[in-house]
Amino acid sequence: MQNVSRLVTFVGAGNVASHLAVALAGAGYTIAGVYSRTMASANALCERLGGVGQCPVGTDSFERLPVADVYIISVKDDALPNVVAAWPAHCRQGVVLHTAGSVAMDVVKGTSDHYGVLYPMQTFSKDKAVDFSRVTCFVEGNDEVAENVAHELGEAVFGHCQKLSSEGRQQLHMAAVFACNFSNHMYALAYELLEAHDIDPRCLLPLIAETAGKVATLHPHDGQTGPARRGDRAVVARHEAALADNPELQQIYNLLSESILRRYD
Amino acid sequence: MQNVSRLVTFVGAGNVASHLAVALAGAGYTIAGVYSRTMASANALCERLGGVGQCPVGTDSFERLPVADVYIISVKDDALPNVVAAWPAHCRQGVVLHTAGSVAMDVVKGTSDHYGVLYPMQTFSKDKAVDFSRVTCFVEGNDEVAENVAHELGEAVFGHCQKLSSEGRQQLHMAAVFACNFSNHMYALAYELLEAHDIDPRCLLPLIAETAGKVATLHPHDGQTGPARRGDRAVVARHEAALADNPELQQIYNLLSESILRRYD
Repeated sequence: MQNVSRLVTFVGAGNVASHLAVALAGAGYTIAGVYSRTMASANALCERLGGVGQCPVGTDSFERLPVADVYIISVKDDALPNVVAAWPAHCRQGVVLHTAGSVAMDVVKGTSDHYGVLYPMQTFSKDKAVDFSRVTCFVEGNDEVAENVAHELGEAVFGHCQKLSSEGRQQLHMAAVFACNFSNHMYALAYELLEAHDIDPRCLLPLIAETAGKVATLHPHDGQTGPARRGDRAVVARHEAALADNPELQQIYNLLSESILRRYD
Repeated sequence: MQNVSRLVTFVGAGNVASHLAVALAGAGYTIAGVYSRTMASANALCERLGGVGQCPVGTDSFERLPVADVYIISVKDDALPNVVAAWPAHCRQGVVLHTAGSVAMDVVKGTSDHYGVLYPMQTFSKDKAVDFSRVTCFVEGNDEVAENVAHELGEAVFGHCQKLSSEGRQQLHMAAVFACNFSNHMYALAYELLEAHDIDPRCLLPLIAETAGKVATLHPHDGQTGPARRGDRAVVARHEAALADNPELQQIYNLLSESILRRYD
């Protein structure tokens, strides 16, 4: 059971922070504050939390960062060192967690004696609700205090929660870029191709759903289909020729087809 | 309503042929025969059709191809010209349809006066059932006879059926390679990365499901997330460095990240 009296302050008000703050509020945590570089962003998340019965303090100043038991830093990865450098003296008693998949735990070392990572492996878009019960959260802590708190928060809102080292998380995050960001980019390129020819790209949706659904029961290596999988170099060459006026897509088509061909030759 | 007395003969006994033959049998068509280059493959599909109450003739000889009202040629794209060259004189009265996404209708011109295309846009794996009600089928015919028959068969078993020219189908098929084969390859590469580090790749499944599900309500351009989307070149560079021992994945990571960065800069 989570300790419902814990105060949580968020540093960052982006997609991950917003979804996580609302979920923690729903699980009984009290959101003490929201910091963002701009008051507009901080206030937007505070308002959203107001809608679920919370009244956090919004601020754009680290000096006014509301004191809490747990600080969750959820900012762009390359902004993390700046946050650590600016970390205020009055907030060094709690547990400080960052949410970045590809950043080592030690980056937030300077903020408190107890620090760690709470990395929910999921794709968060502002306008799309995410079913947290289907998300695995990976946690790490520099000591038992930090690790227990990270685990407690993760268990409270996510379907699964497990320990993973910084090195393992780096691999995981890289794999997630392939499985999520790059697969979505494949959808985007397919949409571009069809939109340029006035074909409704939404006819691809059943194909996309089937492809993604299949991987739950079939290893993606075994589930592969298509011209490169069949070793059908004539079709691959024809597609590459048809993409002659779009060198970017042609290069991507070529590289990925060769990568598939190599695995099934 | 389909004409339930129509006889259908299949040339080819692969994934598409198998799923389609079973579905047509279920919709009341009679499967007269199955040709394959090997008797083993022809017999395997005949046996499967026997399980749904049909008794087609299996053959590996064009001279013994069972006469039918409709011939469906579903073979590797580059084998299509050989099939057309070998087409037997006693099978020139029916409607001949091929199922290839990337092949022009005219490739089967020599087989009959009535010919066309029945292209179900879906990914078919032998061991995985496919919900045909969620598949769109694209049809084309050289005349009204062929087009009507293609449409009738498509409507009988697929959720949606629409007319599309050979040129449009070529674009569609290429888009499908991106949306399906290449996105699946991204899953495969992610699995390889995790398996090499003894992390269970199935922890990616919720992420994959969410990414694919999101595109139903959000254009993939708007649904994109991740380091390249955020313009976070530091993370992109860190991932590329971590892939130094895997030049193939490094090159793919680089090319796709640059492609994403270009779209959101």
